[in-house]
Amino acid sequence: MKEIIALEYQQGILHMIDQRKLPRQQETFLCKTWQEVDFAIQDMVVRGAPAIGAAAAYGALLAAKEYEKEPKPVFLSKMEESLSVLNESRPTAVNLMWAIKRMRSLLKQYAQESVSQLVERIEAEADAIVAADQAINITMGDYGNSIIPEKATILTHCNTGALATVGIGTALGVVRQAFRSGKDIFVYADETRPRLQGGRLTAWELMQEGIPASLIADSVAATLIRDGKIDVILVGADRIATNGDTANKIGTFMLSVLAKTYQVPFYIVAPTTTIDFDMSHGDEIVIEERSSEEVTHIDGHPTAPEGIQVYNPAFDVTPHQNITGIITEKGIIRAPFHENIPPLKGEE
Amino acid sequence: MKEIIALEYQQGILHMIDQRKLPRQQETFLCKTWQEVDFAIQDMVVRGAPAIGAAAAYGALLAAKEYEKEPKPVFLSKMEESLSVLNESRPTAVNLMWAIKRMRSLLKQYAQESVSQLVERIEAEADAIVAADQAINITMGDYGNSIIPEKATILTHCNTGALATVGIGTALGVVRQAFRSGKDIFVYADETRPRLQGGRLTAWELMQEGIPASLIADSVAATLIRDGKIDVILVGADRIATNGDTANKIGTFMLSVLAKTYQVPFYIVAPTTTIDFDMSHGDEIVIEERSSEEVTHIDGHPTAPEGIQVYNPAFDVTPHQNITGIITEKGIIRAPFHENIPPLKGEE
Repeated sequence: MKEIIALEYQQGILHMIDQRKLPRQQETFLCKTWQEVDFAIQDMVVRGAPAIGAAAAYGALLAAKEYEKEPKPVFLSKMEESLSVLNESRPTAVNLMWAIKRMRSLLKQYAQESVSQLVERIEAEADAIVAADQAINITMGDYGNSIIPEKATILTHCNTGALATVGIGTALGVVRQAFRSGKDIFVYADETRPRLQGGRLTAWELMQEGIPASLIADSVAATLIRDGKIDVILVGADRIATNGDTANKIGTFMLSVLAKTYQVPFYIVAPTTTIDFDMSHGDEIVIEERSSEEVTHIDGHPTAPEGIQVYNPAFDVTPHQNITGIITEKGIIRAPFHENIPPLKGEE
Repeated sequence: MKEIIALEYQQGILHMIDQRKLPRQQETFLCKTWQEVDFAIQDMVVRGAPAIGAAAAYGALLAAKEYEKEPKPVFLSKMEESLSVLNESRPTAVNLMWAIKRMRSLLKQYAQESVSQLVERIEAEADAIVAADQAINITMGDYGNSIIPEKATILTHCNTGALATVGIGTALGVVRQAFRSGKDIFVYADETRPRLQGGRLTAWELMQEGIPASLIADSVAATLIRDGKIDVILVGADRIATNGDTANKIGTFMLSVLAKTYQVPFYIVAPTTTIDFDMSHGDEIVIEERSSEEVTHIDGHPTAPEGIQVYNPAFDVTPHQNITGIITEKGIIRAPFHENIPPLKGEE
């Protein structure tokens, strides 16, 4: 079994698996400039909240390398410019903002150091973000595995695996740890319209790892849930408010309503970096609306009449009432979320 | 505004709009034999329960024309053979079985007549099915219009329009009558994976008619419903049990759960020919499972890894508890459905 590495920095170049081309082609997308990283995030060469965070951190590093020869004030001003642009590359992923914030803090904290020292610190920070994400994925996977029965059919949505992180994944990381620990696991993977991350990416990851699975159209999940065919639902998160309300890929909320109606355990799997401690309620989460082409075309091929109006929100918000628990690297958080989430901040 | 005619019989040839090619190409598919009709139904050149019923009726006519020169016993045996095959072309659409049954009854009722007389009767019967469907669509549309507010945002699923019937449509027929009567209508059309009938067909019909609309991925509906953006949900049906349980395109059940949870009126629009009076409960409905290619490929283009297992049920069953009413040509049926549906049979 070959480990899947979504992104890797080597000698001035950020290598990414080009997720726009999977599963048909396994190509590497190379970023030599921070602008290329910005493009890669926007165009979803790389996607998944934790992976976006790591990509943005290396984007900061590429910017630092580019401006390394400038006098310090120019360096700092160019850094701030590139960090601001990177920060806007995807609006919903909180890990992105978190990674950028870490870079800004570092530049402020070590303001007295030389440019080359700062560049070294940025590189160390980006590497630390990756190392931490890998470790966090394993920890979350193990916590999550504790709630998976010996024989379990798991429903998942979108892609939350190695391609969405720099480790084994969040929700799919739990699936991996359950499978690797010898449990009898079967996965239903929602194809996840409009971008089909389930069909393109999750199905591919599951096949690479040999985990038995079926791909389904998103609306098939409802009948499986009602008919008792699903033991547990595991999904990721792009942003979690301190009351537990969770923004995740469009379609997650629908699953949560079905889960609640038919009493199927519904878990979010996400590192605590996904929690926005400044946000007390899901209503405040800005939902990214993406281009209509994502709905009207598939790989450039039209599947709807030209000129049709489209509403294409990339995410939806699942209310905390529909969530059984949030599996983090610090343990499984349960209701009352508004009491149990805020203390996680202090421990960071 | 040009009327859309899904199928039309002219001088020995059944002309169909080739719905596999919409909206990119507007092509006519010609059936000169009953085997071509059988193929057209199976391959979804024509789809939608009422349109399938009409197509099958003309399939019977094409068979009758083909075997017209045979001695009567051969004619009858060939007819029975072709009717049996046509009857199996799609398993869930009850209108298909109903049309075939009408042809069988007719052959039995007029058993003493000559072959050429029987062929004439079959042609008249097929024409009558079409004429009745057209009239029924208008009547349903008008009954349905009575529950549509002056200003309304309507959510619909799959295609239930002129392309699914031989008239103005069922659920989309109600939308048409509301719009044509001057109401301020906005439609959200679910794209309806896997075959994208909403994106390919409903969006096209709405644009042809100039009805304001947005196309959405199926899972977007959940948030719209929760946020009070939908005034009423209108869907069609492929089969209705006498307790009101309704089989319809996959994704319908999911909408019904959301509608029930957030108290949005949820109506089925279907002629009484869609009711299976021999079936008392939705659990008995056989759900057609279609090929995995529908999920893994779009117009022949792969969107999932080769060899991935797929579960692809074409329909789901919405329990009567989630249904506000069933809009038929005989009025709007409401709960208790198991009391109010069976009497409709007697009136046929």
